Amino acid sequence: MTKIITISRQFGSGGREIGKRLADALGFSYYDREIISSICDKRSTEKEASSLSLEAGLLPPFPLTFGRTFSTFATYPQYTSALLVAQQRIIRELAQTGDCIFVGRCSNSILRDLDPLNLFIYSDMPSKVMRCRMREKDGEHFSDTELKKRIRQIDANRARLHDMFSDGKWGKMDLYHLCVNTSGLEIKTLIPGLKAYALSFFER
Amino acid sequence: MTKIITISRQFGSGGREIGKRLADALGFSYYDREIISSICDKRSTEKEASSLSLEAGLLPPFPLTFGRTFSTFATYPQYTSALLVAQQRIIRELAQTGDCIFVGRCSNSILRDLDPLNLFIYSDMPSKVMRCRMREKDGEHFSDTELKKRIRQIDANRARLHDMFSDGKWGKMDLYHLCVNTSGLEIKTLIPGLKAYALSFFER
Repeated sequence: MTKIITISRQFGSGGREIGKRLADALGFSYYDREIISSICDKRSTEKEASSLSLEAGLLPPFPLTFGRTFSTFATYPQYTSALLVAQQRIIRELAQTGDCIFVGRCSNSILRDLDPLNLFIYSDMPSKVMRCRMREKDGEHFSDTELKKRIRQIDANRARLHDMFSDGKWGKMDLYHLCVNTSGLEIKTLIPGLKAYALSFFER
Repeated sequence: MTKIITISRQFGSGGREIGKRLADALGFSYYDREIISSICDKRSTEKEASSLSLEAGLLPPFPLTFGRTFSTFATYPQYTSALLVAQQRIIRELAQTGDCIFVGRCSNSILRDLDPLNLFIYSDMPSKVMRCRMREKDGEHFSDTELKKRIRQIDANRARLHDMFSDGKWGKMDLYHLCVNTSGLEIKTLIPGLKAYALSFFER
């Protein structure tokens, strides 16, 4: 049976880096927002364009960027439903193709019946702010207050989106097999332990 | 520096078994309620008897049994403060003697300044009920309703006790480095992963 790991994460907790490094360590395929959106965009301009238009009433004119970069999701909720349906379909298709890790996209809920290992990555606010600062683009600067506000806003959006597709609440530990606190820790130091935990889980 | 792991756990989640197996796997000393209470009892009948009496106004006439077996703690809160002070002292002494694992006893909070790896072990209710059933003594039988009520009561006592000694809330993930869901899992299958995670943590 295909081995699947899903990673849900607080913004700035390093969940994406864990996903990428863990996929490399395990030899699993890696899928995140950008990759899934890219597949989705490609399809939506090809054969699925008409059905997406019908479902949404509108074809989204921009890439779905909430997640790692600061979100426009809160401002444009009306665009999301067709994209989300298409993304769910793609996530399920990808999950059939081999051992893999999904970061975000409500994959823990979407793939529930495929018995994935569900991780939740979290962190204290100082560590999240520090990680966001390290990723600041040239010329971009937010005050600490602004940064914290945006971090909370993105997590609130993630929670809202997740809870639309799940019986449980985003970030509540009962939804996950393992919740990993990255506060003050260097992500790469956690990989050997998480790899061993994942292997134990799949060999059970 | 001494390597210390603390394990906080929901009643029936298998936290004690994780502690014992992980201690064996790592070659660490293992301390839980029974061991600490036993040291405490021994001392309280020897040199510390007088000071305990002074602190508490009463010398506890019974072993402190809340935890694994169903608790009398809720009924006798007036007896606990002196014992808890004595236990804290013993926990700090034991933590100086070598690499070790503590299960319960608010050790995550008591040993905070020694940089322990703090685990929280949790489980869904059906798994907790099943684990409690497997430990039923001869002649002991509780209905499912009664068992669930007692499980919730013990966790409520643990939370209340913990929160007296901590800035954070028992069971809230920000207090722990790793939260482990044991629902439907056999405890021993989790040990290789947890061992590797602990080693990564201490080598960071």
